Amino acid sequence: MTQANLLYAHSGGVTAVINATAVAVIQAARARPDRIGKVFAAHRGILGVLAEDLIDTSVLDEAALQRLSLRPGGVFGSCRFDLPPSEARRVMDRLFEVFAAHRIGYFAYNGGNGSMDAVARMGEAAAERGYPLVCVGVPKTVDNDIVGTDCCPGFGSAAKYLATSMLEAGLDIASMVGSRGSVFVMEVMGRNTGWLAAATALAAGGNADAPPHIVLVPEAKFDETAFLAEVRRVTERLGYCAITVGEGIKRPDGGLIMEKSRDGGYVQLGGAGSAIARMIHENLGYKHHWAIPDYLQRAGGHWLSATDHAQAIAVGEAAVDLALAGRNACFPTIRRLAEAPYRWDVGIEDAARVANLERTLPPEFVREDGLHVSSLACDYIRPLIEGEIVQPTKGGLPDYGAFPLHLIERRLPAWLK
Amino acid sequence: MTQANLLYAHSGGVTAVINATAVAVIQAARARPDRIGKVFAAHRGILGVLAEDLIDTSVLDEAALQRLSLRPGGVFGSCRFDLPPSEARRVMDRLFEVFAAHRIGYFAYNGGNGSMDAVARMGEAAAERGYPLVCVGVPKTVDNDIVGTDCCPGFGSAAKYLATSMLEAGLDIASMVGSRGSVFVMEVMGRNTGWLAAATALAAGGNADAPPHIVLVPEAKFDETAFLAEVRRVTERLGYCAITVGEGIKRPDGGLIMEKSRDGGYVQLGGAGSAIARMIHENLGYKHHWAIPDYLQRAGGHWLSATDHAQAIAVGEAAVDLALAGRNACFPTIRRLAEAPYRWDVGIEDAARVANLERTLPPEFVREDGLHVSSLACDYIRPLIEGEIVQPTKGGLPDYGAFPLHLIERRLPAWLK
Repeated sequence: MTQANLLYAHSGGVTAVINATAVAVIQAARARPDRIGKVFAAHRGILGVLAEDLIDTSVLDEAALQRLSLRPGGVFGSCRFDLPPSEARRVMDRLFEVFAAHRIGYFAYNGGNGSMDAVARMGEAAAERGYPLVCVGVPKTVDNDIVGTDCCPGFGSAAKYLATSMLEAGLDIASMVGSRGSVFVMEVMGRNTGWLAAATALAAGGNADAPPHIVLVPEAKFDETAFLAEVRRVTERLGYCAITVGEGIKRPDGGLIMEKSRDGGYVQLGGAGSAIARMIHENLGYKHHWAIPDYLQRAGGHWLSATDHAQAIAVGEAAVDLALAGRNACFPTIRRLAEAPYRWDVGIEDAARVANLERTLPPEFVREDGLHVSSLACDYIRPLIEGEIVQPTKGGLPDYGAFPLHLIERRLPAWLK
Repeated sequence: MTQANLLYAHSGGVTAVINATAVAVIQAARARPDRIGKVFAAHRGILGVLAEDLIDTSVLDEAALQRLSLRPGGVFGSCRFDLPPSEARRVMDRLFEVFAAHRIGYFAYNGGNGSMDAVARMGEAAAERGYPLVCVGVPKTVDNDIVGTDCCPGFGSAAKYLATSMLEAGLDIASMVGSRGSVFVMEVMGRNTGWLAAATALAAGGNADAPPHIVLVPEAKFDETAFLAEVRRVTERLGYCAITVGEGIKRPDGGLIMEKSRDGGYVQLGGAGSAIARMIHENLGYKHHWAIPDYLQRAGGHWLSATDHAQAIAVGEAAVDLALAGRNACFPTIRRLAEAPYRWDVGIEDAARVANLERTLPPEFVREDGLHVSSLACDYIRPLIEGEIVQPTKGGLPDYGAFPLHLIERRLPAWLK
């Protein structure tokens, strides 16, 4: 009997360590030629599965995989795909046609909360159809908002990038303290959660006078009066004030501070940082600067967290183990075993149990006045940014290599969107 | 006879390697106890000299200096200080009172074009007054716009940071290419010059299809129609378009694309990136993201250019040599001796000759259509970002250390602003 093939796909926003997970899946699958045939990767996520755009990963040799493991961005491509309910049946039929056409027996879907929903539904669909598929999730998101895992691969490196950025920008602005006061605002990702904003608090190293002096997270309702009073208090004492703003911070009525644009159902957040900086300038007259690292924060391969990278690999390997064990509609998680020194291992969670949920900062991670995070938040995040990885460089830049993608021949009629 | 003391001061915006220069000045001065007594550093630049806030650097031992050399931001503080013409005499009198009170015989002023003007004027004033001062400049600016030097310490590290950021963000956005097209805009510093914008072109490594696809520099007048046509052409071919925008780009009538605020006579630039991103979205309907690294680009100590760091040290050492040689109103420059392999040494320039000039990109560094830079620009910048430096870390973050500043006792009446 020919072994079933494995199909791997990215979903949603990419991270600095997402390829590490992909490589781990490929290597773990290759290690079991008795059970797994070829390893395919979907080109541009689930849209690539529908289009039958499958990449044959066997052209990547061990040296290429080692290098790919350190490359940010999803080399096979990804997409945001919200299944229109009216199309659900037609889409699901097509997915299984593609699976059948390419003898896919294992599907590893690397994504966040929404993807875990897809994993659960595809797992069910396989059972209903009597199609021999084991569908497993692989957790990934810089937002760190997946329920059921202590942390999410991708978060640690973005957290390290942002904490370092706040530390460095803080040294710059502290150099330039003038008589009129100046504020620096950094807007960070995280959608409805403040995990990435909280990470910047590590820059202060426990020093209350060190940046960031204020951390605004979506979990605390934004109170303009209290906020401006705190900015003034800090600036009068220190001459400057450094502020982290989570992109999803909300007014007491629940409205976003600023909403950039809607892209179909997906609200693309942004603008909170400049809105806050302008608010300070208009009300207090201070000089204002703002930074928006945007994609830079989730693509910082030159400054990876070694812990994050190791966890990204671990969930990839574990996903293959789960698939081989027939654990349909599950996903591997990171479990925190001990705090100091930090120890972790890999657990298992049901995709259906966490699908579409969102893990926000627990109340005890937010300072009572809602203007900063607590030391508990720092204790939680600290180990996740630990460790550095030396990237190969060429001409002063990271040498991320080039990875030509070999699409296999299609066997089905074209997919009509 | 007691040796004269040396006073060192920062001026204007700081850089990731400005402390390396400060350390080099201190170490070179310490190496000549026969000629130089104490080394003082002004607290917060020239304002600190006026206020008689002088830091005694002798409390920094060799280990502290080694560590300080790798710390971004100006540890002694800096300021922007535009001398009001009506106050010129009073200010100059005060400076020489402070010099006399603390036996300052050497003044090393680390700054950009404006600072070279100050160096020239202070040098003249010393001669007029018959005060035994040698006043030397030390070049520094991320904008790379000082005339008379091949490049400016601070530029190489900012250039490396931005080229790396474009490379990494480009990998991210390329992963997420969708059917509707998406654009990514990164706004960079540089004021009226496109040196930093040009640096991001190194990310493409000579590949015309790789980010950045468009580089807008202030030296080329911004033509909205031609620009939007190019964005459309790139996006239709590749599915996405990555764009670098210099903060100082101008419309054909010379007006800035967006001007954030005026702070006295100093125009604080910013907003060009988001303005361009919105322009694309409104005209072409593409998804749009923008990044503003702001202070992060000039404070990236975790990702220094080793070449830049070495040049920052070299100009510091050379400044002391010039001071000891009595070369009043001069500053050390970086000279390019050979291109491949790159070789450089240190030259000398007159401060008065370059004061308040601005070195812009030469026409041959800008592509004819004004929408990108040429390969000549890349050839020029490439060696300046070469080499990495391993920063000591602690808890996953660069360990930049803490440097308590010891202000010496004042001897003069307070300075009334």
